[in-house]
Amino acid sequence: MNGTFIVFEGIDHSGKSTQVRLLSKKLIEKGYEVLNVREPGGTNISEKIRKIILDNKNIEMHEKTEALLFQASRAQLVNEKILPALKEGKVVIADRYIFSSLAYQGGGRLISKDSLKSLCSFATGDLLPDFTFFTDISFETYAQRKNWSRKNLDRIEQENASFFTEVRKAYLNLVNEFENFCVVDSNGVIEKIHLEICKILSTRLKGL
Amino acid sequence: MNGTFIVFEGIDHSGKSTQVRLLSKKLIEKGYEVLNVREPGGTNISEKIRKIILDNKNIEMHEKTEALLFQASRAQLVNEKILPALKEGKVVIADRYIFSSLAYQGGGRLISKDSLKSLCSFATGDLLPDFTFFTDISFETYAQRKNWSRKNLDRIEQENASFFTEVRKAYLNLVNEFENFCVVDSNGVIEKIHLEICKILSTRLKGL
Repeated sequence: MNGTFIVFEGIDHSGKSTQVRLLSKKLIEKGYEVLNVREPGGTNISEKIRKIILDNKNIEMHEKTEALLFQASRAQLVNEKILPALKEGKVVIADRYIFSSLAYQGGGRLISKDSLKSLCSFATGDLLPDFTFFTDISFETYAQRKNWSRKNLDRIEQENASFFTEVRKAYLNLVNEFENFCVVDSNGVIEKIHLEICKILSTRLKGL
Repeated sequence: MNGTFIVFEGIDHSGKSTQVRLLSKKLIEKGYEVLNVREPGGTNISEKIRKIILDNKNIEMHEKTEALLFQASRAQLVNEKILPALKEGKVVIADRYIFSSLAYQGGGRLISKDSLKSLCSFATGDLLPDFTFFTDISFETYAQRKNWSRKNLDRIEQENASFFTEVRKAYLNLVNEFENFCVVDSNGVIEKIHLEICKILSTRLKGL
């Protein structure tokens, strides 16, 4: 593989997609060929699977069905898009990857991590990113960005708060398990965070 | 679990669905509550997944995507329909189950059996049938039912013949791996085969 595979992970409102956009722009300016992908989705078949996952009508969906659909979408994306692009020497930037499954389905929905790891390994053929950036925010930042006041959370917001805590914990547990899994403090100024990410990547990608 | 879980497996044209119908009818006559299910499909969500699997437009589907979609459909069917029915004491008759994945994806498409077994175990929570009937036919019967002459197979038919042989072999290999996996010679007279199946089931289901 001549390419570079970069993954962004994080909870919604953590600034993940903003950082993906900034990095992608910078790399293109520097002359790199970039492929941006997002999960679930990113291929015709994966987008059809995404529709089933996200359709509000499918409220009876079992957590294992959901986990398997995410992996099916990922298997198609990896084999149809990511692997060929890496072979051609491109930089692939993915908005979410296997770590989302481990954090959300493992931390949030309590499926065993061993089962999830084995599913991820099957779906991706053990393709791991060269760099992963976890855009980490505190609960305060999260609540602020969602316009919540900490003191007066309603029932759903409280549920979401506890879900936030579980998922964040599950993400932070991955630091010691995967190489080049970088936690980026994403509470601060967007441009500063971007520069921090570029600095880490500059060890491999010249000109950043 | 008070119910009885019966699975029929076999290659297309092996008479599997005919035997499902005959058994189902007999059980209802004898006063049993019966739930018939088929794979892939059997629930609203599973039928949506089935559409993606079978859609001719999705020719670029990777074999791992396909394998994961079958498991997603199965996870929903087991949890939404099969398990509740078994808890209520019903007889569940399934037209295809995990053995189809092992025989078709394992034998036909060369995904490792260990991977497939681990996917099946995850999707079903290790729910195994009380009885499995593999309706086995020879290549001669298969060719005859498809109106082929053995001597003059065209290219596609030859490919299908080799696929038939691989899948059949994979099915037969399961006999020693799973309990109560019965091979039923399905080349002969329908009614005789039906009686053989009823005889095996009569050890558990009174009145058959």
